Amino acid sequence: MSVYLPGLEGVPATRSNISFIDGEKGILAYRGYPIEQLAEHSTFEETTMLLLDGRLPSAEELAEFDEQLRRNRRVKYNIREIMKNLPATGHPMEMLQTAIASLGMFYPGNEALTSSRMSEDLTYIHRMTVKLIARIPVIVAMWQHIRNGYDPIPPRQDLTTAENFLYMLNGREPDPLDADIMDTCLVLHAEHTINASTFAALVAGSTLASPYGVIAAAIGTLSGPLHGGANEKVVDMLEEIGRPENVKPWLDKQLASKAKIWGFGHREYSVKDPRAKILQKQMEKLARDRGGKISPLFETALALEEIAEVRLGPKGVYPNVDYYSGILYSEMGIPTDQFTPIFAVSRAAGWLAHWREQLADNRIFRPTQVYIGEPLREYVSIDRR
Amino acid sequence: MSVYLPGLEGVPATRSNISFIDGEKGILAYRGYPIEQLAEHSTFEETTMLLLDGRLPSAEELAEFDEQLRRNRRVKYNIREIMKNLPATGHPMEMLQTAIASLGMFYPGNEALTSSRMSEDLTYIHRMTVKLIARIPVIVAMWQHIRNGYDPIPPRQDLTTAENFLYMLNGREPDPLDADIMDTCLVLHAEHTINASTFAALVAGSTLASPYGVIAAAIGTLSGPLHGGANEKVVDMLEEIGRPENVKPWLDKQLASKAKIWGFGHREYSVKDPRAKILQKQMEKLARDRGGKISPLFETALALEEIAEVRLGPKGVYPNVDYYSGILYSEMGIPTDQFTPIFAVSRAAGWLAHWREQLADNRIFRPTQVYIGEPLREYVSIDRR
Repeated sequence: MSVYLPGLEGVPATRSNISFIDGEKGILAYRGYPIEQLAEHSTFEETTMLLLDGRLPSAEELAEFDEQLRRNRRVKYNIREIMKNLPATGHPMEMLQTAIASLGMFYPGNEALTSSRMSEDLTYIHRMTVKLIARIPVIVAMWQHIRNGYDPIPPRQDLTTAENFLYMLNGREPDPLDADIMDTCLVLHAEHTINASTFAALVAGSTLASPYGVIAAAIGTLSGPLHGGANEKVVDMLEEIGRPENVKPWLDKQLASKAKIWGFGHREYSVKDPRAKILQKQMEKLARDRGGKISPLFETALALEEIAEVRLGPKGVYPNVDYYSGILYSEMGIPTDQFTPIFAVSRAAGWLAHWREQLADNRIFRPTQVYIGEPLREYVSIDRR
Repeated sequence: MSVYLPGLEGVPATRSNISFIDGEKGILAYRGYPIEQLAEHSTFEETTMLLLDGRLPSAEELAEFDEQLRRNRRVKYNIREIMKNLPATGHPMEMLQTAIASLGMFYPGNEALTSSRMSEDLTYIHRMTVKLIARIPVIVAMWQHIRNGYDPIPPRQDLTTAENFLYMLNGREPDPLDADIMDTCLVLHAEHTINASTFAALVAGSTLASPYGVIAAAIGTLSGPLHGGANEKVVDMLEEIGRPENVKPWLDKQLASKAKIWGFGHREYSVKDPRAKILQKQMEKLARDRGGKISPLFETALALEEIAEVRLGPKGVYPNVDYYSGILYSEMGIPTDQFTPIFAVSRAAGWLAHWREQLADNRIFRPTQVYIGEPLREYVSIDRR
């Protein structure tokens, strides 16, 4: 029997050709393409196809997939009614898990997965993947209005995923730079090997559960504060710091007491996270574009980044992807508790790519345990306890 | 690095003191107590406490816990409205995943899990555990009426979990033998080491997600036909066979073509599953009690069991727990697609015991992968593909 390693750290749980990380060299690649090149040249729609199919699509293939996504943005009114019955005080990630689980009842058919006719399965897998990728951002944006007591803004077919998401969220034409940065954020968060939520998707998928059940399991897993919630914490931290001039004394105090600085360091990387470098440039671009009109939070973030990079960089601790994404979303006026749902909008592409890969060579997950409990013993009746 | 074992077979994923299986000796024990003794002397409520706390409760402790369960049976009307907006044609397991995920928004507080004050966490863990164990059966029974267009039957506080479940399902005083058998079924299905759904609960729980998100992840995983759905298949199979006199020719044909016989054999046991032995006795008891008034399906099941045990028993293949539970539920008039939700009603006890154990010594699950994909390559612009 293998040795027990807590959290299965270092234990391979799958064979995969979707992405890889070289944490010492600071490399993240989807299907072999470095994340820097995808962030610069690709879009969320194209990156999703790349993750799913393993290759960059032709112009026609991309146009067809994009058209399918646009046509699948409408959400049934029953789902909207379900959302209206959820308490406004609940966390949007719980809303998202609820709504996605419910979708499975409206789009049945996972018996296709038990068919031995793999060509039919692929049709089902593709159809359901489109439905999910198209609707997750729509549902996240709808909630922003429903929880405030308003009807959601209907989706538009003439916009990209990133543009339509910002349009539905804010109810106005999205700023082109904002939409461009949002698209880059979606590309950057789409996939990151076998983290906890992707692993949960593999485990659920291995029982041939429906993709809605699988993605709902992954969303529940991502909702945990040790996983998806870090970029929320960054904004809380920046609000605690307040003005830029408070950064230096605050950081001194934190470092002296060895307190956690949210958005710095990453278990997978010993050098700077390549996604953080890309987002740092986006942040600088946004700051230039806005000129003086940036929020105090943003200024505080820029100041903390500058000072912390000098102090922590030599120790291999850098601002990570969560640091920048939180600040960028915040500057776009997105509420803090919607950051993790945006993570899910993007990561759904990776989850579904892994789900498909799992099905192609499936074996149900059933690990073992180290039993450390009581040996066999006799039941004692209640009057003798 | 460890070797890659598909499905993590034989790889220990946790240290646990909740249950163990000896598949060669046919032993299953919860907290050291053999399943036979629990089935005979214990109840679902007591067994749940045993799984959660690690010891048999005193009479007072049991009475208090039972009282908490009874007081937590009411379900908010918003949840009922959500259920009314779900399509009647959807699978009850998808309904259950949706409803349980939504509960998290009504009962917030998982920030308690990140608190370092473990005594407060335990209060939160216990409170949420009661809410879930009490409400899952109620929601499953409510759905039976809602999907048929009727208002659900309100729960009663004067009944046990098994009695109230049958009462809410059928709208009449439960038959005492039926309630007794249902209670035994709930005891027998409550825990079975680290299967796929329990594992999904560990993975989701390791991110400190709320227990509703965790149990919804486990429900999605259990919904897969390779996991929870086998007892449904048994009834489909018996309906296909038809009358008892068809059993012999049908079995000959299946064995000759090496086709699957649902409800026979189990990966964990090389001898007869101890739970199957117990249910076989329950089945005989029910047949005696009903006298001649048993359904043809039940007679067919008895005939198949008798013939198959002679033919397959010597090969180590016996009727398993799914074989008997499906037939028993069917004889109680429960619709086939509600069998897996009943599995969830019971297994929630095991899931929540493992969730609590995971939190007591938590490390986030992040296994690794064997990368078999493309090496680093250059992005190709769309006009050159």
